[in-house]
Amino acid sequence: MNERPIEPPRRILGIDPGSRITGYGVIELVNARPVYVASGCIRTADGALEQRLAQIYAGLAEVVGLHRPTEVSVERVFLAKNPDSALKLGQARGVALVCMANHGLGIAEYAARQIKQAVTGQGGADKSQVQHMVTAILNLSATPQADAADALAIALSHAYAGQGLLATPARGARRRSSGRWRL
Amino acid sequence: MNERPIEPPRRILGIDPGSRITGYGVIELVNARPVYVASGCIRTADGALEQRLAQIYAGLAEVVGLHRPTEVSVERVFLAKNPDSALKLGQARGVALVCMANHGLGIAEYAARQIKQAVTGQGGADKSQVQHMVTAILNLSATPQADAADALAIALSHAYAGQGLLATPARGARRRSSGRWRL
Repeated sequence: MNERPIEPPRRILGIDPGSRITGYGVIELVNARPVYVASGCIRTADGALEQRLAQIYAGLAEVVGLHRPTEVSVERVFLAKNPDSALKLGQARGVALVCMANHGLGIAEYAARQIKQAVTGQGGADKSQVQHMVTAILNLSATPQADAADALAIALSHAYAGQGLLATPARGARRRSSGRWRL
Repeated sequence: MNERPIEPPRRILGIDPGSRITGYGVIELVNARPVYVASGCIRTADGALEQRLAQIYAGLAEVVGLHRPTEVSVERVFLAKNPDSALKLGQARGVALVCMANHGLGIAEYAARQIKQAVTGQGGADKSQVQHMVTAILNLSATPQADAADALAIALSHAYAGQGLLATPARGARRRSSGRWRL
């Protein structure tokens, strides 16, 4: 009766909310290493705003139901580009956050720089570098769509933040003397 | 068997979403005249953003469950003040809209000028004029809190828009030659 309780596996859902495309990515930590579970995009059809927001809510609720994440991670928004895009992003973001809260899930937030730093080693990395490194770290056979890759990067950031880990070296990546990974 | 079907009474929920205070107001159209049903505020406690958004969602879901609106009305946002406040407003607004959509309710939007025009006769009216006219039109014994009054004004705008009505004259209000109502 002295057995250690079995810890449930950590499953992290990363979300990249947007009014037109919301990316999501799910990873599981297996022996403290991130393993790809699922990723994709929720694309909203044309129609009334509330119907598009309901599609985001329903899509994320389906992801939660299918993949049962234990933790959720989103990008922190520091400064939106302009009031109009901030309002649109805010609406999608509010829906994503409340959907998670309504499913009893807590949310961690990471700044864009932290996310890029975590997966590429460089806070100023561009989108294609993030896509490339996510593909390499998770050993994917194909490059995920950009928003899905961002969501996976957000999930990976949370995995690394909890473990104090750097990005896992990818096939073909070499460690530079600075300690960063280079493809 | 030639009886006319009984039309369900129209109940309009007006919502004034905000990250700290979300106002709501419910009116019913009785013989095409607006009658006060309920109004109030959902105040979010300190805490994680997603928890505050969940309070807005739960509060509005409770209002819908209690008062069974048939229609919903919100203010259209043309130009938010700055990106930061636009993001915060957007998050609260997204939650309010998705909560309504998840309850199968359609949403009408009115510009701030239209709302002020509908209840005060003047598109440039200030908040206290809106509060005053809402109190008068709905024959309330006390002035509602500012966000609740805004929400009632938003609901009244929808009632008037559907009927091509001007603001109902309040006690003590006189019609000006311009056709506007003056207190």
